[in-house]
Amino acid sequence: MPKISIIGAGSVSFSASLIRDLTLAKDLYGSTVTFMDIDEKRLDMVYDLASRYMKEVSANLKLEKTTDRERALDGADFVINTVKVGGYGFMELERDIAEKHGYYRGIGDMVSDYYGGFAAFKQLNFILDLARDVERINPDAYFLQVSNPVFEGTNLVVRETKLKAIGFCHGAEEFKMVTKVMGLKEEDIEFQVAGFNHCIWLTKFLYQGKDGYPLLNDWIEKESARYFQSEEYLNNPWGYQLCPAVIEMYRLYGLFPVGDTVRSVSPWWFNTDLETKKKWFSSGGPDSEIGWTMYLFGLKLRLRSMIMAYENKELSLAREFSMLPSSESIVPFIDSVVNDKKLRLILNVPNNGAIEGIPDDVVVEIPVIVGKDAIEREKIGKLPSRLMVHIIAPRWWRMENILQAFRDRDRMSLLLMIAEDHRTKSFEQAKNLLEELLMQEWNSDLREHYR
Amino acid sequence: MPKISIIGAGSVSFSASLIRDLTLAKDLYGSTVTFMDIDEKRLDMVYDLASRYMKEVSANLKLEKTTDRERALDGADFVINTVKVGGYGFMELERDIAEKHGYYRGIGDMVSDYYGGFAAFKQLNFILDLARDVERINPDAYFLQVSNPVFEGTNLVVRETKLKAIGFCHGAEEFKMVTKVMGLKEEDIEFQVAGFNHCIWLTKFLYQGKDGYPLLNDWIEKESARYFQSEEYLNNPWGYQLCPAVIEMYRLYGLFPVGDTVRSVSPWWFNTDLETKKKWFSSGGPDSEIGWTMYLFGLKLRLRSMIMAYENKELSLAREFSMLPSSESIVPFIDSVVNDKKLRLILNVPNNGAIEGIPDDVVVEIPVIVGKDAIEREKIGKLPSRLMVHIIAPRWWRMENILQAFRDRDRMSLLLMIAEDHRTKSFEQAKNLLEELLMQEWNSDLREHYR
Repeated sequence: MPKISIIGAGSVSFSASLIRDLTLAKDLYGSTVTFMDIDEKRLDMVYDLASRYMKEVSANLKLEKTTDRERALDGADFVINTVKVGGYGFMELERDIAEKHGYYRGIGDMVSDYYGGFAAFKQLNFILDLARDVERINPDAYFLQVSNPVFEGTNLVVRETKLKAIGFCHGAEEFKMVTKVMGLKEEDIEFQVAGFNHCIWLTKFLYQGKDGYPLLNDWIEKESARYFQSEEYLNNPWGYQLCPAVIEMYRLYGLFPVGDTVRSVSPWWFNTDLETKKKWFSSGGPDSEIGWTMYLFGLKLRLRSMIMAYENKELSLAREFSMLPSSESIVPFIDSVVNDKKLRLILNVPNNGAIEGIPDDVVVEIPVIVGKDAIEREKIGKLPSRLMVHIIAPRWWRMENILQAFRDRDRMSLLLMIAEDHRTKSFEQAKNLLEELLMQEWNSDLREHYR
Repeated sequence: MPKISIIGAGSVSFSASLIRDLTLAKDLYGSTVTFMDIDEKRLDMVYDLASRYMKEVSANLKLEKTTDRERALDGADFVINTVKVGGYGFMELERDIAEKHGYYRGIGDMVSDYYGGFAAFKQLNFILDLARDVERINPDAYFLQVSNPVFEGTNLVVRETKLKAIGFCHGAEEFKMVTKVMGLKEEDIEFQVAGFNHCIWLTKFLYQGKDGYPLLNDWIEKESARYFQSEEYLNNPWGYQLCPAVIEMYRLYGLFPVGDTVRSVSPWWFNTDLETKKKWFSSGGPDSEIGWTMYLFGLKLRLRSMIMAYENKELSLAREFSMLPSSESIVPFIDSVVNDKKLRLILNVPNNGAIEGIPDDVVVEIPVIVGKDAIEREKIGKLPSRLMVHIIAPRWWRMENILQAFRDRDRMSLLLMIAEDHRTKSFEQAKNLLEELLMQEWNSDLREHYR
């Protein structure tokens, strides 16, 4: 049975959900799960909680913990990278600086929270370093990229190493929240999404075997106005899977945007200020000052409840936490590879012809069938050409820009990236922002890298 | 000997320079040149001037004139399309409207003058219509696209017909103005440019067999400041081949921009208003209110001198006009095809692998060797990756956008194109501009096409 290593296992809630998924996957019993983190306290906590939970539910998994990356990678069949360098700390600092220079909610894409260190530098730097270690120690391992930016990060590993790198995101599953609001039965739904991570579009939608788009159009026409006035919608900035922004993007680009797409590639005119954001997203959406504050607060609460569970050794974890599988496809993926189950999963893999007009070496998010030694891509074909021109190509080349700047250590390219931002009013403004970012004490690595 | 048909031959100065080039190409003597235009008066004038000039210089060419397109295309080996629908009239009207809506010097690319009818509609419509006639009447003819937009127009013909379509522009030759200012001998210069029409970059530059870039750097460092203070520079808005904008674009993107590149793809922050334009271009450059007014005035003067020559039958045209070949490569191209001369010309042809990372069916401007039945592309390889990301890819996808909107009759895509313009401050602003453009009486064709 395989060895599964989690790098950055101190991410408590991620590790908790992974362990729960593993305990539910009986065909993976006998596997070794190695928790690795440089934060020993967090590591101990996760290890303790996982061990207790497993014992409670009588799951047969071998758990290990280590602060030594080499040890974790040695013999690992699956390396899961969940590391977010510095947590959200750098992002918050970076955004404060950018706001001072006239960039509401910071630079990067509109979500901006997928970036840590300008243009994802700290993340890309860590991902590549880890991937090179894996390649040296264990070149046959699967490299599972979980932390953001999944699009850029997975592409980096695919291009710079020979590893089998795959990006993971549960975003596509969130379409089920839309169909639930519409009152459709989950078991009667089939759908296909395609695009890039956080930029996926509903390319097929069947309900009870028939095209579901007319149902969607009907709901929009007859029900959406009422829904957008409901308590259910109004009180939840995180209900963005179905909000006026989604409907408008569907109207503008011709396909329904799924999951975080509305956060990552909604056009600039949805996001100029809080007032405008409130028109498009409930309470301004997840990335406004309101929604994001709630998110960070929610993270703290979750951590606190984990710490309490850790300290109260008498507590039944199985009773405390949900026994349902998460919507993450990491464990199903491992299960399908190990046991050749041929599961259909939505993953981030090199395009290899799946979407027309996208080069083979660009990582796309599409449904694939996963087997023992193969990943079979669902053929997507041509995306609608207006979507291609206004969304897919710009997002693809934004990825190329970020990777180009990173690979060439190209400070000028970073500067041009800011200068080209729709909000930039002068070249000087862009220069000043970049300079202030680079002079931060916590950005000495960035300063050193970009010459 | 071939039949060469000029569609839109009433463009007097174009036809004059073509005829002069033809009289100098002795190996093409015996050819038939058919002038076609719907403006009979202009046609008569061009035909008369050309006949007189030929007689004076004893050139052996057979001239014809017709207002009937079918007759012109019948049996033609080379069809030259020089038509600009409505001349510059629509552009001027369009720009006035756009300026009223807050778009300084109009929409389209920064040059904006390459557009007639929003997003080049009237031109593309005409080009495709003509190309389809050629394909029907004479599918083996070469289709030579001369009028703008050469990039979009040639691509359209390449994709929508089976014709051998090639785009022509003398822009690359203007690099010789740069080397002349630098005091270099023209005969010792070799260079290669690559990119798209009006977006070409100096990929190789040899002087006396050695890399010429250090000479260029040296000139910039030591001589440019003085040159930009000289009368020669200051009094000529059309001396933009060497101006601060060119130097800055070289610094920003890593290669020297050649010809009209500085007009078409200079970044938005060079072009916000006349004051800013004056910093980057002499007197604000060719596309400012100053330079453009001069240009239109120059066109009028040239037409007037042609009319005077036409009316004064005693005038020696050979004495009146230069006897030197123009910098256009149309006649050398025909000469090289007909007589298998293997000339090296800079033309717009489908990429077919010449530039890495650009699809085969995208038309690029590169040096090629022209023979009887073949066009051999000079291998360009990889362009600098920063240039690729910030200039080449966006310009490529702007072309895709224009052709997509045209092909799909997609009004929403036009609207998004304006909305994404860096100057747009609200979606409403974009909508209002598009609506006002579409309601113009002279845009009924546009209104009908884009549903």
